[in-house]
Amino acid sequence: MGASDLSSTVVRATVVQASTIFYDTPATLDKAERLIAEAASYGAQIVVFPEAFIGGYPHGSTFGITLGNRTAKGKEEFRRYHASAIDVPGPEVDRLAALAGKYKIYLVMGAVERSGYTLYCSVLFFDSQGQYMGKHRKLMPTGLERAIWGFGDGSTIPVYETPIGKIGAVICWENRMPLLRTAMYGKGIEIYCAPTVYDRKDWQASMTHIALEGGCFVLSASQFCRRKDYPPPPDYVFVAAAEEPSTDTVVCAGGSVIISPSGQVLAGPNYEGEALISADLDLGEIVRAKFAFDVVGHYSRPEVLSLTVKDHPQDPVSFTSTARTESTPK
Amino acid sequence: MGASDLSSTVVRATVVQASTIFYDTPATLDKAERLIAEAASYGAQIVVFPEAFIGGYPHGSTFGITLGNRTAKGKEEFRRYHASAIDVPGPEVDRLAALAGKYKIYLVMGAVERSGYTLYCSVLFFDSQGQYMGKHRKLMPTGLERAIWGFGDGSTIPVYETPIGKIGAVICWENRMPLLRTAMYGKGIEIYCAPTVYDRKDWQASMTHIALEGGCFVLSASQFCRRKDYPPPPDYVFVAAAEEPSTDTVVCAGGSVIISPSGQVLAGPNYEGEALISADLDLGEIVRAKFAFDVVGHYSRPEVLSLTVKDHPQDPVSFTSTARTESTPK
Amino acid sequence: MGASDLSSTVVRATVVQASTIFYDTPATLDKAERLIAEAASYGAQIVVFPEAFIGGYPHGSTFGITLGNRTAKGKEEFRRYHASAIDVPGPEVDRLAALAGKYKIYLVMGAVERSGYTLYCSVLFFDSQGQYMGKHRKLMPTGLERAIWGFGDGSTIPVYETPIGKIGAVICWENRMPLLRTAMYGKGIEIYCAPTVYDRKDWQASMTHIALEGGCFVLSASQFCRRKDYPPPPDYVFVAAAEEPSTDTVVCAGGSVIISPSGQVLAGPNYEGEALISADLDLGEIVRAKFAFDVVGHYSRPEVLSLTVKDHPQDPVSFTSTARTESTPK
Amino acid sequence: MGASDLSSTVVRATVVQASTIFYDTPATLDKAERLIAEAASYGAQIVVFPEAFIGGYPHGSTFGITLGNRTAKGKEEFRRYHASAIDVPGPEVDRLAALAGKYKIYLVMGAVERSGYTLYCSVLFFDSQGQYMGKHRKLMPTGLERAIWGFGDGSTIPVYETPIGKIGAVICWENRMPLLRTAMYGKGIEIYCAPTVYDRKDWQASMTHIALEGGCFVLSASQFCRRKDYPPPPDYVFVAAAEEPSTDTVVCAGGSVIISPSGQVLAGPNYEGEALISADLDLGEIVRAKFAFDVVGHYSRPEVLSLTVKDHPQDPVSFTSTARTESTPK
Amino acid sequence: MGASDLSSTVVRATVVQASTIFYDTPATLDKAERLIAEAASYGAQIVVFPEAFIGGYPHGSTFGITLGNRTAKGKEEFRRYHASAIDVPGPEVDRLAALAGKYKIYLVMGAVERSGYTLYCSVLFFDSQGQYMGKHRKLMPTGLERAIWGFGDGSTIPVYETPIGKIGAVICWENRMPLLRTAMYGKGIEIYCAPTVYDRKDWQASMTHIALEGGCFVLSASQFCRRKDYPPPPDYVFVAAAEEPSTDTVVCAGGSVIISPSGQVLAGPNYEGEALISADLDLGEIVRAKFAFDVVGHYSRPEVLSLTVKDHPQDPVSFTSTARTESTPK
Amino acid sequence: MGASDLSSTVVRATVVQASTIFYDTPATLDKAERLIAEAASYGAQIVVFPEAFIGGYPHGSTFGITLGNRTAKGKEEFRRYHASAIDVPGPEVDRLAALAGKYKIYLVMGAVERSGYTLYCSVLFFDSQGQYMGKHRKLMPTGLERAIWGFGDGSTIPVYETPIGKIGAVICWENRMPLLRTAMYGKGIEIYCAPTVYDRKDWQASMTHIALEGGCFVLSASQFCRRKDYPPPPDYVFVAAAEEPSTDTVVCAGGSVIISPSGQVLAGPNYEGEALISADLDLGEIVRAKFAFDVVGHYSRPEVLSLTVKDHPQDPVSFTSTARTESTPK
Repeated sequence: MGASDLSSTVVRATVVQASTIFYDTPATLDKAERLIAEAASYGAQIVVFPEAFIGGYPHGSTFGITLGNRTAKGKEEFRRYHASAIDVPGPEVDRLAALAGKYKIYLVMGAVERSGYTLYCSVLFFDSQGQYMGKHRKLMPTGLERAIWGFGDGSTIPVYETPIGKIGAVICWENRMPLLRTAMYGKGIEIYCAPTVYDRKDWQASMTHIALEGGCFVLSASQFCRRKDYPPPPDYVFVAAAEEPSTDTVVCAGGSVIISPSGQVLAGPNYEGEALISADLDLGEIVRAKFAFDVVGHYSRPEVLSLTVKDHPQDPVSFTSTARTESTPK
Repeated sequence: MGASDLSSTVVRATVVQASTIFYDTPATLDKAERLIAEAASYGAQIVVFPEAFIGGYPHGSTFGITLGNRTAKGKEEFRRYHASAIDVPGPEVDRLAALAGKYKIYLVMGAVERSGYTLYCSVLFFDSQGQYMGKHRKLMPTGLERAIWGFGDGSTIPVYETPIGKIGAVICWENRMPLLRTAMYGKGIEIYCAPTVYDRKDWQASMTHIALEGGCFVLSASQFCRRKDYPPPPDYVFVAAAEEPSTDTVVCAGGSVIISPSGQVLAGPNYEGEALISADLDLGEIVRAKFAFDVVGHYSRPEVLSLTVKDHPQDPVSFTSTARTESTPK
Repeated sequence: MGASDLSSTVVRATVVQASTIFYDTPATLDKAERLIAEAASYGAQIVVFPEAFIGGYPHGSTFGITLGNRTAKGKEEFRRYHASAIDVPGPEVDRLAALAGKYKIYLVMGAVERSGYTLYCSVLFFDSQGQYMGKHRKLMPTGLERAIWGFGDGSTIPVYETPIGKIGAVICWENRMPLLRTAMYGKGIEIYCAPTVYDRKDWQASMTHIALEGGCFVLSASQFCRRKDYPPPPDYVFVAAAEEPSTDTVVCAGGSVIISPSGQVLAGPNYEGEALISADLDLGEIVRAKFAFDVVGHYSRPEVLSLTVKDHPQDPVSFTSTARTESTPK
Repeated sequence: MGASDLSSTVVRATVVQASTIFYDTPATLDKAERLIAEAASYGAQIVVFPEAFIGGYPHGSTFGITLGNRTAKGKEEFRRYHASAIDVPGPEVDRLAALAGKYKIYLVMGAVERSGYTLYCSVLFFDSQGQYMGKHRKLMPTGLERAIWGFGDGSTIPVYETPIGKIGAVICWENRMPLLRTAMYGKGIEIYCAPTVYDRKDWQASMTHIALEGGCFVLSASQFCRRKDYPPPPDYVFVAAAEEPSTDTVVCAGGSVIISPSGQVLAGPNYEGEALISADLDLGEIVRAKFAFDVVGHYSRPEVLSLTVKDHPQDPVSFTSTARTESTPK
Repeated sequence: MGASDLSSTVVRATVVQASTIFYDTPATLDKAERLIAEAASYGAQIVVFPEAFIGGYPHGSTFGITLGNRTAKGKEEFRRYHASAIDVPGPEVDRLAALAGKYKIYLVMGAVERSGYTLYCSVLFFDSQGQYMGKHRKLMPTGLERAIWGFGDGSTIPVYETPIGKIGAVICWENRMPLLRTAMYGKGIEIYCAPTVYDRKDWQASMTHIALEGGCFVLSASQFCRRKDYPPPPDYVFVAAAEEPSTDTVVCAGGSVIISPSGQVLAGPNYEGEALISADLDLGEIVRAKFAFDVVGHYSRPEVLSLTVKDHPQDPVSFTSTARTESTPK
Repeated sequence: MGASDLSSTVVRATVVQASTIFYDTPATLDKAERLIAEAASYGAQIVVFPEAFIGGYPHGSTFGITLGNRTAKGKEEFRRYHASAIDVPGPEVDRLAALAGKYKIYLVMGAVERSGYTLYCSVLFFDSQGQYMGKHRKLMPTGLERAIWGFGDGSTIPVYETPIGKIGAVICWENRMPLLRTAMYGKGIEIYCAPTVYDRKDWQASMTHIALEGGCFVLSASQFCRRKDYPPPPDYVFVAAAEEPSTDTVVCAGGSVIISPSGQVLAGPNYEGEALISADLDLGEIVRAKFAFDVVGHYSRPEVLSLTVKDHPQDPVSFTSTARTESTPK
């Protein structure tokens, strides 16, 4: 379907600002269903969850890592975190697909993905007919994340063409990567999802800039977490804080927001609490904005500046035949 | 088939001088069919339409652009203009291909092409068996056109070898670009189509010069438009004119013409109204003319003057795998 | 000189928010000197002027251009605008170099450059010893600018290594071009100058984002112009306005700002009037910021995303010997 | 089934340190059953036998080979060795499968495989339900082994996904092949079996290193043989020794060992005699270890170093149709 | 001196339409002086003579050449033609330089140049202070010209920067060579001289087209010759004509013309007789025209189409030392 | 010089087990000189220093990083750490080169390299004539190191052919990367240097295994540090420890060792204190060992297992011309 067909389309979008139920993936999925159901009851056609909503973002943890050392306690903490992550595909993915189909929404879900013994910060995409479409893996984790999450590659930076526009996701500080954003623009992204757990005010500047630069709608979903959303000590210790935070201390303040291609804030930012933030996206705004600035179209200079995206999978080991492991017949 | 085989061939050619039905692409296609049918009834083997016949040339408009500003009204005007353009390939291209096959003509059609959110001033080529052959995108728009159209590259300056000669197109003031013309000569162009909306008398000098310089037939098709071919105000306002033109005011006066390789005017120029301008092209004239002057042959000095044409596509973003966006399964 | 040597350096920077004296280049240069002298008296080591400060930005003008037409009046307006531009090198460049040396400042000056009959929106760089260092030409003009300015190429996107840091400039909406910015980051830019005439509030979001993305200081100098800074009608007509603006009407509202690598606004934005906006840049902030995010260093993924910059000059005509035209001996 | 499901699983493993009954395959199989039964009685879920347990490792023999010659006696020796080997599949394989099912163990058995007139040093895998799963053929025999065994290919380096973890085997000095080990890591091996007949002390360093490198359990089973386990002269002559060893001389000293993913020795090494060496494998150790180092996950650099495994069968003659030979109708 | 300095300059230009006095070079020079004096008396600042004015254009001659043969008579005819040509430099060049100085005009003179035994169709340039500036040699003679004239190279296609604009010359059908014209545009030509002896009407189309294409003034000077300007038979025989022309028959009908950068005919074309054709060139017209179309500036696409001009001398024999011949001391 | 020429060569090698003088790079260089002088006095021909000897390994520090946060104190700590690193090339590199030349040794030096704002854990190589040869950058930092060091690429994994054998280095846990080691083997490494700061006992197993696997000498140099080698609190705080260590507490216990290609420990391991550990390397041992096992020679199976090393530099931004930044003339 061509771009023009969508230019008079209005899409109701909801970004979810909420916290994982830490170390309890089934309960987190139940919470996801309640939030999806509520968004759908207001007519949402696309629902975007924050980074690592499933699996959780271990704010303030060090996993016992210091330079040159790892504590046994930190290793055990990682084992539990690894256990809270989900296989893709797997039963949790099946449940999310079913939810998308039941509530007839496009679902963009942040999740910690388990692939063998390496975890990835991923975003999963589901269509409104209940199909799992695919995933984005965070290309470059930030700071200590590099010690708990692996690195995605160019094969998992998808943009999906759907009846409500072209959808993709860029996670947290990946949004500061100009070449990654340009890859997304090159794929024609129209509904640019930015799941995050970054709650500083400068995030708003980046979101506005990206909307203008990309000529796309930006939907940023951030977690809103209090201390009590994590297990009590000693199961979970906030070593980052000078003193252990109190139960209601805000650990991640949200900041979810929806911005139009002309840089207008349509909803949010919300720094108050858990919330559903919704807006109607007039897709015709895209063409009006790109008239003045089309980052990979009339405003590009490919003969001077050209980006190459190596979007094949990069594996340390490749097998010329397809099957890696053989299963025991049952 | 080599050039010599064509030297005793006579080809009946028709250039169409007519106006777009502005903001109404389906009606414009209907009009195209009527004109093609009429040309075919007179035996035309090739029919050339003016620049931007599909999509339209917004004479006298500014799209609300001044230095440092764009009006909201101008942006909306662009959205409607964008909606009138066509995807290539796409359903309108399919219809044009079918027309070429039905009437057994080679069809050279000016069209505003939509590629994502950037528009191009393109010319589409179809063979007499109903196949879409390819397109030329205007390399360098003129003046304010640079604010509404993107820039083509070297990958879309084709010349097609056909049983009725080698066919290509150069649009409007591109005809003033000596290096682009030389690229066409280098590709062996024999039937040089020059779709335009430029109606000044100096155009005739350029057309004659090109026929002589290139040793080719020149077929220039221009639009003939009156004020009434555009929507009435306030839907469309001629800001260029001191006062709003009256209904019958001529906005573009045509000037379509057919010229032989020896510089002889075979038909036209017509400045009277909408018309079909036809002539029989004796392809043997080409060899007679090139005997004296062959611009890329015996009259060239490649050891002194050499042109390089970079004719690969130039994209701001390249992907090492082929598929850019993935579609949702239906 | 390596980066570490600068990490304890503090640089006093001034951005100039002022208007061209339109159609009067000598007077504009005089005004430049007054502003430079004042900045130097406060200890400025680098002074940045707005886009097109020399030559002027013809706000609200159309140069008589509509689609398919140009008025004689518009052509004459261009002739005068062309006469106000400066050759590079040339006498005005010599004067600017002398000013930089006299006041011992690094000077970054927006100017309309004349190269034959094509104009470029350029930024000129001068060192504190009175040497002209080179220039940046705007790669892609915006909207109607494309009808009055040519297009720069990859050979004029310099970053200069100086004792006060690595200095470069990106003009107006070029700042929305992620690949151009990445080229600047790749060159190690530390003092990122953003001359502009764009006075909308969304500019602040882009400036903050770029400081964070690039881990550099951003110095944005915008013009502040009132109607009276332009010649009175009929010499200059604001066709953009519904009615001719009054003498004191603000035509360009400034918005000049200085931002640190961590996204902190150090000075400005100023939307009040002509002004010198100054701040002390603690270059050690760069390394503190890049510790967390180094866009072309530890936070890049070159094996997935790689940018190629074609930074050789691109000319339509190349001569194998050096001299193009010969001068008559005097 | 995903990795996490196993993270709280404990598996009891036994490695068998014992000698073949040389030139007597049925007796060797009887001995295998006795050892399996004993291991199972202690609760073993997986039992690993040494290299060439079935068929035997002809320590000290030369098979009459010198450079440029082979003795008739050596040829006859090979005939007898060939006769002691087993076809795969074949009746001995069926018996082994039945044993695995009867004792409900996963069985990893070293065997000399006969395929026509070529022998292979293979390892056979059986599941606890009595199914033969497949085999690994030693890729690269060592020294004189190359004169009696063929070379495996990439189609026989399996890793099997089972309810007690992913199981594979690497034989003797194959364990020094970093690319083969990486292939096994790439297949996700968790229970890394290392059948051998190599009894030097440096073997322990390699076993520890592999556990650390691969983040897997290493189960090394070696033969423990005395002179008397071989036929008396002249049926079997130890030409390698200066003088014929006495009956109780140790010919292969064992060294079987079980090591955890963090490099901790769980059982062994045993250099004393025939024995069953057992340990409980806490599979949760794997994730704790890989948190710090995941050789094909977060600690790989596929964009720099990539291994290609050609794991299709490599045959000297290929046929374009699938059936190689036609069968005579019965 | 930059282009802008000339934008308010008006230059009076004269093109000379006259005939050589055949086989009488001194008389031809006398005639040239009379014509220059007359032009100067009307205020001409630049005077342009036709192709081969000195030396003559042997209309209607074959020099006895047929395919495979040359007659002795033709050879003798060439000897006389060779004798009428001039060395450059040489006494005739000195005289022409003196004339330019005396009458304070820029002089552009068509001449047959003798270089050893090869002749060239050249154009000589002189400044108003009496200096010979240099020459252009016709790159590619037409038809039978190739049998009497040599071929120029890239080292003799000059454009001279002068106080009255940038001056160059392109001879006769060289004007149909798009790459040569582009080389001249690349050198910034402003006063484009087109000496010729081609008198067909289609010449006017080319002259107009070039003015538009190049954005320059075009000054075309053609010969106007009658039969009586040549020696009577048998000294000169018009073998081309069916019958010997009568005394007053027009052999070359002129067509000299002056055209502005916007394609406006300022003077001529004259097909009546010998004449001085003059016009005042408002150099400001150039910038007004190039505002819309600058063939090597804003309207070029160098990243797609680029011309290389090899403008070094091309000699069949090169010497590594600079002096080719040694002079005898006087 | 080929490998055989070295087979009767004996090389005296020294590995240095010592601590950085933290935050004091000049003093660390002074200490390096004292240690080199001492080693040279005993006849050492090659001297290997530990990982990060210059710049230091910040044991026990977190740089204020927790998931989702960085403290201002941590940023300042990084700024100081960045200041202690060295540019390559740069004055410290010049000094090291001079030391190698003065003492006529091959020098292998661990250093924290500063490249703009990203640091790398590098090893520098110098020859005995005082030339800097090149560097290896750690490919994959471990755990929290990923937050302070960038990632090397395939262009900096050198092996240098010298008169004392082929020398390369693999840093700390890189030694667990089988593909990287295989790359080194593929380059023919003979003197395999393994600088580290890892002091656990399992390191010895890896060192022995690598010597056997690679058939090379392994020279492992580790730091030996006490608390007092670091600045006292609050300048440096061991957050990893439950309580601040006392002055003499061992922070890194060394373990430096030299091992032969047959797995024999020639010197060390030393866990006692700072020391020079030396051995004579009989290079003939290499060929004796590889006779049995040549990992990239006769014992490889390239048709099944093949490693690809992408050893070109990988930069996020490439420029088609060579110079990135221009320097101000001084």
